[in-house]
Amino acid sequence: MPNWAVGEFDLIERIRRRVGASDSVVLGIGDDAAVIIPSPGMALVATTDALVLDRHFTADWPPADIGHLALHANLSDIAAMGATPRWALLALTLPADDPDWLEGFLDGFLGAAEQTGVVLVGGNISSGPLNIAVELLGEVAPDRVATRRGVKPGDQLVVTGTLGDAAAALALGSEAPETLVERLHRPEARMQAGRVLAESAHALIDISDGLLADLGHLLHDHLGAEVRIDELPASAALQTAISDPTRRRHFQAGGGNDYELLAALPPLPDGELEQLARAAGVTLTVIGRVDESGQVRCLDAQGNELADLAPGWDHFSP
Amino acid sequence: MPNWAVGEFDLIERIRRRVGASDSVVLGIGDDAAVIIPSPGMALVATTDALVLDRHFTADWPPADIGHLALHANLSDIAAMGATPRWALLALTLPADDPDWLEGFLDGFLGAAEQTGVVLVGGNISSGPLNIAVELLGEVAPDRVATRRGVKPGDQLVVTGTLGDAAAALALGSEAPETLVERLHRPEARMQAGRVLAESAHALIDISDGLLADLGHLLHDHLGAEVRIDELPASAALQTAISDPTRRRHFQAGGGNDYELLAALPPLPDGELEQLARAAGVTLTVIGRVDESGQVRCLDAQGNELADLAPGWDHFSP
Repeated sequence: MPNWAVGEFDLIERIRRRVGASDSVVLGIGDDAAVIIPSPGMALVATTDALVLDRHFTADWPPADIGHLALHANLSDIAAMGATPRWALLALTLPADDPDWLEGFLDGFLGAAEQTGVVLVGGNISSGPLNIAVELLGEVAPDRVATRRGVKPGDQLVVTGTLGDAAAALALGSEAPETLVERLHRPEARMQAGRVLAESAHALIDISDGLLADLGHLLHDHLGAEVRIDELPASAALQTAISDPTRRRHFQAGGGNDYELLAALPPLPDGELEQLARAAGVTLTVIGRVDESGQVRCLDAQGNELADLAPGWDHFSP
Repeated sequence: MPNWAVGEFDLIERIRRRVGASDSVVLGIGDDAAVIIPSPGMALVATTDALVLDRHFTADWPPADIGHLALHANLSDIAAMGATPRWALLALTLPADDPDWLEGFLDGFLGAAEQTGVVLVGGNISSGPLNIAVELLGEVAPDRVATRRGVKPGDQLVVTGTLGDAAAALALGSEAPETLVERLHRPEARMQAGRVLAESAHALIDISDGLLADLGHLLHDHLGAEVRIDELPASAALQTAISDPTRRRHFQAGGGNDYELLAALPPLPDGELEQLARAAGVTLTVIGRVDESGQVRCLDAQGNELADLAPGWDHFSP
């Protein structure tokens, strides 16, 4: 315990040295708690996600990729609220006092923080099996919050970016091409798209658990949806790596870890989706439509139902 | 993964059902992130602490005690800022889908939350080695923040409650009397004392790492202190369980986990300490004095230095 305690202070000091000052942070790393001045009139948005070894990443990942992913997994939740990320806390549990691993992790974590305007304000280091819990705070005007509620029959279902890359990288393992591995290790949370979509969306959600699972969270009461599976956006890398369309569909509809957003939007006039996409800085694709069927039906280009993509699927949660 | 995913939603639903509503929480458990309305004009105080199996607790602890400790370890950091706790996030990593364990944990965690005015607003559940990361947010008027800085020569060192109980319980293991075990498993963070001491303290810190280690964090630059070891407050249970005064001193000066507060106060007029203690709702004891010696000297009742209590000790961190 005493050795670790000294190590802990040393590691905290390493982190403190790498974090810059910020006007909103009265007191950052180094006291019992951080003191922050929130922006007047803004709502506070708070989320936490933990990364666990062999569940969210494996021991062969570069530490910088783990740091990047740890922040972006949380950024994606903030994006899904239409909010702007501001402050992070980091509860690290490390198996050993390993400054090299920590510096690599910080390269990824603090690099991602700097690019997205996030300040690391505090944290905690414990010894134990590797576990990285991040808490991220953001801000949003109270009347601009996007939620999972509010979907209406007739809404168009729109996704950002492309789907299935990360799941394919996971499945292909060491055979995966670099482009797909990059999507798994270094996802880019759709911050700008979140803010843009929040303005008009009836509902918005991060689809890190997979499109169909997360779509289920949007469909309250008797609502259902048609999803046109052949419209799901696929990257060129995915099309090359997974040439079998049936297999590709599974990654796109069921795979997770893409950190894209799914929005339910009122039907858009011609040209408006392109305008939204330009503002969002990412491609937007209409993939289906909300109805009152109480179920999700996956259809191919010919309108045939692909039952195997959603076997017995109804609602995961109320 | 699919089984765990279903289990995860079920566990989250179990938690959601047990958490009440709150005016300040626009959106609690169940969306991508929580949405909170902070109080106008208040600073936000944020901290995180993780509990790890076999480091902070052992497998034989009742889950309710683990839940209680997880919140109070964080509450203590909020108390040390003079702040009022408001909202919590919980990142749980659990080795198995064990609803009984979770319900027990929630008894302790949510019970402690209710008693201290904290609302659980969100969280995350992963599968992996047991790890409980809590993020706690509090509020404080910006001009009432207590920090670790600001200690002045001549300041009196004052601690809340009694010291050494938790460390003695740890050392005694299964031989420990129930009163001491209670202090280890179910510490009560000094919330009221934190707010009261913050009004007059030059500096305030939570001494969960042990008195001498945490005192070191207060003593910047050339400051030092005299600590009168025989004045350290000891509970009746500690005096009975550890009759050897030398052994007792070690637990009191070096042991951790008591979650008491240490304040540096300007010298107080007669009777004022008693008045502060009444307002704080806990005993307050003057245990020493800040000086400009650059070191901490531990003295017994006769004024003899007890070098073994702080061997080679100077400053842990700048």
